[in-house]
Amino acid sequence: MSLLERLSFNQITADPWSLEQAVRNCSQSGIPYIAVWRHKLDGDVKKAAAMIRNEGLRVSSLCRGGWFSAPTAKERRERIADNRVAIEEAAILGAPVLVIVSGPANGQTLEDARATVSDGLMEVLPDAEKAGVILGVEPLHPMYAAERSVVVTLKQANDIVQRLNSSSAGVVIDAFHVWWDPEVMLQIERARGKIVGFHVSDWPVPLPGILMGRAMMGHGVIELRRLRQAVDATGYDGPIEVEIFNEEVWKSADTGLLQQTQQRFLEHVG
Amino acid sequence: MSLLERLSFNQITADPWSLEQAVRNCSQSGIPYIAVWRHKLDGDVKKAAAMIRNEGLRVSSLCRGGWFSAPTAKERRERIADNRVAIEEAAILGAPVLVIVSGPANGQTLEDARATVSDGLMEVLPDAEKAGVILGVEPLHPMYAAERSVVVTLKQANDIVQRLNSSSAGVVIDAFHVWWDPEVMLQIERARGKIVGFHVSDWPVPLPGILMGRAMMGHGVIELRRLRQAVDATGYDGPIEVEIFNEEVWKSADTGLLQQTQQRFLEHVG
Repeated sequence: MSLLERLSFNQITADPWSLEQAVRNCSQSGIPYIAVWRHKLDGDVKKAAAMIRNEGLRVSSLCRGGWFSAPTAKERRERIADNRVAIEEAAILGAPVLVIVSGPANGQTLEDARATVSDGLMEVLPDAEKAGVILGVEPLHPMYAAERSVVVTLKQANDIVQRLNSSSAGVVIDAFHVWWDPEVMLQIERARGKIVGFHVSDWPVPLPGILMGRAMMGHGVIELRRLRQAVDATGYDGPIEVEIFNEEVWKSADTGLLQQTQQRFLEHVG
Repeated sequence: MSLLERLSFNQITADPWSLEQAVRNCSQSGIPYIAVWRHKLDGDVKKAAAMIRNEGLRVSSLCRGGWFSAPTAKERRERIADNRVAIEEAAILGAPVLVIVSGPANGQTLEDARATVSDGLMEVLPDAEKAGVILGVEPLHPMYAAERSVVVTLKQANDIVQRLNSSSAGVVIDAFHVWWDPEVMLQIERARGKIVGFHVSDWPVPLPGILMGRAMMGHGVIELRRLRQAVDATGYDGPIEVEIFNEEVWKSADTGLLQQTQQRFLEHVG
């Protein structure tokens, strides 16, 4: 089986495209999976689900739930409610995984914010179990600790998932977020049986920006093949998402992007 | 004793100043320590040492040694030789600590580069012991893994220092580099007796840039007081360096900067 059969195009890689454009383009390029973002659903999840199904694509994951920490109890309740909606949306889309980005400290101490994340996950876990959706806890690179995620290492994500102790809880490993970690290989092995997503892109030198700095595979220093092999060695054989936040890529997003993605994916991940 | 008696001004905070300007300004402001950068020494270390002594200042550390990894064996030998020079310079300046920034992978794999760093430190350790200088291994934030340092966590630095097993090897803890780490408190405690430097600045939100993004204490989200108290609780009572890379700070660097530094230091670290 070619690794291309596991390729999933994360639609944020071509942010200017509508969901329908992204799905059609993937379908025409023979890309079997798409990862969907909630803000692209335009409020009609069933319609989106039908359109994706009709084009013959499968959804690898829905981005995203999480963002549990907030300064007030009221806002924290709203976050929980929003996560329940996201779980429902994932189920309707047939997405096996809801990607969880935990959110920043957001007015709490780091320690309190981390506890809020664990509590939030515990609270929505029964909903995920009932819906048959897996909460995929994704550690973000520590440079996002202040703005996006207090969960910053795979060890931390593994610890959380271990405590959740449910078939509806797993980890999502994004190479861009974890490649630097001296413990990454150890923690990938520790995640055996709990890996529910693997994302690739690359870390260019110099990094052009914190948020929009990711590069196409092969344009950076991440040992992607080695990480992919380590993930596969745990028995993971699910979709591999290409997820690139890069304004240059967005500007030039046409169907050539998908061909390039396939080629780079084979060359640097395969 | 006021915490101001432990304040060290890292001269990179006012990069436009010459070493002599920085020393005079610190002396006039009653700042007892300065941290010196090698590229500011202008080739005459003895003269610099005498000037600093005459102004009544002490040197908290010399920045920097390290940068061990290189693509060829020849270059790696040159790095070792340069570290020996840096150790001599630190001794002449009366700097108890040479700060070690390990360097990026630089053409090696992460794993090989990390081994090169450990080997390099082991090789120059006898020189440091003879000179009475401590090699202060400083983990850098993981966002610098590709460009500056393959040593990215305090755990890693502690592991290295444990293996070096010498009174001439310790760790330097910079709040900006370690604050995000779920294990930071554990690793600070583990570093007991081996902490040879503590640096402060702040992490603003949003971070304006990877290299020049650091802020004055109080303009960011780092729990500086809590980290300082944890470091002190291990028995560390040495200098605390203010080290801020920020072009805006550089542009407005006048003697008001030192007064602001003292005030912010007391308010947010004390």
